Amino acid sequence: MEQRISLVTLGVTDLSRARRFYEELGWRGQEFEETVFFQAGGIAVVLWSRETLAADCGLNDRGAPGFAGVALAHNVRHRAEVDEVLASAERAGATVTRPARATPYGGYAGVFTDPDGHAWEVAHNPGFALAPDGSITVPTFDAS
Amino acid sequence: MEQRISLVTLGVTDLSRARRFYEELGWRGQEFEETVFFQAGGIAVVLWSRETLAADCGLNDRGAPGFAGVALAHNVRHRAEVDEVLASAERAGATVTRPARATPYGGYAGVFTDPDGHAWEVAHNPGFALAPDGSITVPTFDAS
Repeated sequence: MEQRISLVTLGVTDLSRARRFYEELGWRGQEFEETVFFQAGGIAVVLWSRETLAADCGLNDRGAPGFAGVALAHNVRHRAEVDEVLASAERAGATVTRPARATPYGGYAGVFTDPDGHAWEVAHNPGFALAPDGSITVPTFDAS
Repeated sequence: MEQRISLVTLGVTDLSRARRFYEELGWRGQEFEETVFFQAGGIAVVLWSRETLAADCGLNDRGAPGFAGVALAHNVRHRAEVDEVLASAERAGATVTRPARATPYGGYAGVFTDPDGHAWEVAHNPGFALAPDGSITVPTFDAS
């Protein structure tokens, strides 16, 4: 298995509402057969019916929990952008679940959930190189 | 907000078990401060304590549900690789929740869940171009 992700599909209860939310944040997608596709760097972010996605995965859906066990992160280039993105998201209908604050790693970050409860951390992390095309590089840690 | 994801963090209950699972699939990560980072194309896949991740997001965790509302996909280059990756994942401790089968879009795909219940679809989708570096391009649909 190559070391990569191709798509991240977010289950949603109202496709139009979900698409409108991401488009209010400036994203542009294509809707095809009740599915919205956003090109996001070298991967795709997809919005699809939560019920259909669960069935397609062969999984039972017990409904949206407080925390899904997954968080997406969106790293930005400057500290001030964290506040800007969180404010835009809130205007678009997000809930800020953790206001922006300094982080232990010397950055600055906050978290919002989209209208379906999917968590996004918006972070300025000086330790993770962010290329002009938006791709990131994990630094070499003094790690095991 | 630029149209991209920087990291996908998977909440896990046993970091060593989770890391071992992905390493048995051939991935190589770095562990730093009880966090495992995998470079995955232009993004990072991160394994971190589910409990800590929930708290960090300002969210209540009601425990792992049957379906988290999110599915990751790993697209492969040939149909036979779908079966190979699903078999490797099962050997590494995954549960195949949807055996591989032909898909309505002319592809072939199955789904497994990792030891923490995170869903991965393994798909051969001839309609989504897969570059040598593993990045994918969403096709232009006759879309709205």
